[in-house]
Amino acid sequence: MANSMPACAETISDERFTAIYHLTASDAEASDRAWDICLEQTVEFPDDLIPTRAIRERIVGRIASIVKLGRDRHEARIAFPVDVAGGELTQLLNVLFGNVSIKPGVRLMGFELPASLANRYRGPRFGQRGLRERLDVWDRPLLSTAIKPMGLSPKELAEFAYRFALGGIDLIKDDHGLANQSFVPFRERVTRLSEAVERANRETGLRSAYLPNITAPADQVLERARLARELGAGGYLIAPGLAGWDAMRRVADDDACGLPIMSHPAFLGAFTSSPLAGIAHGALYGQITRLAGADATIFPNYGGRFAFSIDECRDIVRACNAPMASIAPIFPAPAGGMKVERTRELCAFYGRDSVLLIGGDLHRPAGDLVANCRRFENSVRGAIGVPPRAERPDSE
Amino acid sequence: MANSMPACAETISDERFTAIYHLTASDAEASDRAWDICLEQTVEFPDDLIPTRAIRERIVGRIASIVKLGRDRHEARIAFPVDVAGGELTQLLNVLFGNVSIKPGVRLMGFELPASLANRYRGPRFGQRGLRERLDVWDRPLLSTAIKPMGLSPKELAEFAYRFALGGIDLIKDDHGLANQSFVPFRERVTRLSEAVERANRETGLRSAYLPNITAPADQVLERARLARELGAGGYLIAPGLAGWDAMRRVADDDACGLPIMSHPAFLGAFTSSPLAGIAHGALYGQITRLAGADATIFPNYGGRFAFSIDECRDIVRACNAPMASIAPIFPAPAGGMKVERTRELCAFYGRDSVLLIGGDLHRPAGDLVANCRRFENSVRGAIGVPPRAERPDSE
Repeated sequence: MANSMPACAETISDERFTAIYHLTASDAEASDRAWDICLEQTVEFPDDLIPTRAIRERIVGRIASIVKLGRDRHEARIAFPVDVAGGELTQLLNVLFGNVSIKPGVRLMGFELPASLANRYRGPRFGQRGLRERLDVWDRPLLSTAIKPMGLSPKELAEFAYRFALGGIDLIKDDHGLANQSFVPFRERVTRLSEAVERANRETGLRSAYLPNITAPADQVLERARLARELGAGGYLIAPGLAGWDAMRRVADDDACGLPIMSHPAFLGAFTSSPLAGIAHGALYGQITRLAGADATIFPNYGGRFAFSIDECRDIVRACNAPMASIAPIFPAPAGGMKVERTRELCAFYGRDSVLLIGGDLHRPAGDLVANCRRFENSVRGAIGVPPRAERPDSE
Repeated sequence: MANSMPACAETISDERFTAIYHLTASDAEASDRAWDICLEQTVEFPDDLIPTRAIRERIVGRIASIVKLGRDRHEARIAFPVDVAGGELTQLLNVLFGNVSIKPGVRLMGFELPASLANRYRGPRFGQRGLRERLDVWDRPLLSTAIKPMGLSPKELAEFAYRFALGGIDLIKDDHGLANQSFVPFRERVTRLSEAVERANRETGLRSAYLPNITAPADQVLERARLARELGAGGYLIAPGLAGWDAMRRVADDDACGLPIMSHPAFLGAFTSSPLAGIAHGALYGQITRLAGADATIFPNYGGRFAFSIDECRDIVRACNAPMASIAPIFPAPAGGMKVERTRELCAFYGRDSVLLIGGDLHRPAGDLVANCRRFENSVRGAIGVPPRAERPDSE
């Protein structure tokens, strides 16, 4: 039947984007494996049954190159039609790594989008430059911390937020475990913490931002984002692994939200846990996170309590900054068991255009959070060669 | 400061749910690693800095047991407070596997929810029994296929759908790559394919259902689901790995949608690609998928073009059927390079309460789709010991 009917594929443009995979495959297998990806990610149909030449020529992926990397390792570059991905992030992710995610020995290393496809996405609303403008911090890495531990009352957490802001922390984010639990309800928490940070800002003259966690049920993400803005929040924390990548994209695109976004890596660990499968660190925490609208991407720093290597962290930094059509660079935000004592090393590695996130350790030594924050800031300033901030008499 | 303030944690109930992890850890490390999960998944705060006893006692996870499985392998059961997970699927997933997903050598094997927590979720609207009622098929596995290849026009795809329904396929789902591309727009596709299946049903007297793919941008999933129902669709296909787990839950819970859901594994492969990390097959494709509202869970069958083992498939079947408070059992739906020739083996392994999904191979031999479908059905009937369906003179 199908052979005699005009195929719709003929209307498709021939513009392509490129996905880069590393394959566990022998020299003999590599080209069959690459061709299998071309089919699997598009028609998902047996080669010999593809009904028309137009589908074969215009829908199916094309092998752009196969390069041997080592014994049983090959890099395949596959060119997929832009029109197959269309304008939806869900479908772009599907073409990049939908079914092949389930096949053994395929790792998505990255992708290259022509401007015509990349420009279908706004990406980060602020990016590095926009976020610096909001915070009016130009000469050093941004400082961030997390509101925790869970179990304190909103009032107690607000006291922490106040002190963090007084101490000069730029981005004060919720712990990603603070959702809308009965003991720390979203509206009360956001009201109190926004007010506390604003109060500190009036005292310091700084522009610290409180970023509540808007990781939430599908129908409440946008609602919480808009509510948070009304209540005076200065940004959002969202975990795309839990809420969905496109939920983050939707918030970033929404003019009624319009605040900076930090993305959190919760539930994403499996993507990078095997070097032979999943998605490479830069592609996941850099490219995809950026395309999906985050202004800063939190990921586990090397040498902390997680397991990323120094090269994997470098890959993320590179992907945050590499050219990507009109999509702005975003901040890498290393986190996870970081300590003030490592500031010099972190600044040397991540440079000025990063967000340094210290959570629990900022409470050490216990007793004077404001002093701890200032120590953090001055340590960063010292490491990057910027003079200490002048004390203001009214900032406690 | 915090030590002198009353902690909110005191208001939390002591009811717990249990998560089961396999750890790559020596005998000496196992208990520290388990304790680390207790902290990481709740307070995410250094042990010695936890400000109150109430937080330590009521918020932090508890080690219920640690059992040695083998050299450097331990099973840890951790009991987390029900109130920390609250009533949101995003936060439950976060407690189960948020940050620990990023730590090396931790695999989530499954979880046990008390009725009070499980009952906060509707789970599948239909489940096995409800789906059988809708289709009026009681005595055999359900038959399913996919509408493809991408690149044919909606009209051509509708012709396939018509023939599949005429041939007696119960669940005729979109290929998950059919989104809302310019060459196969959602509304036109769903209109034509729903009409085609309905026309075939009038001829056969059967109740075949067409399930369009509603994997879509965050703000369009529910809209497409409702539209599809208006246009006559008989169910939904959704890929929670792309759209978000809670997007599927939201559709299942929505009375204005109210159709059966098949979940698709696209983009989920990394979760199971390493036996030492990620989430076990049954927990992911069984427990989580079920909790998130699917009525049938598609996964790659063993021995096809993907890589699941026979034991991994068995784990999924078990998790689809195991008691889970008031949440109904769902259909395992093995797929991926399946062939009619394997029907007997598949029926023996998966039993009557399964959905057998044959995609491309149902087009083989080319030429008579209706006959191929009948061969599939009769092969299943033969394997399960049910007589062949009587031919109706008006069914072509």
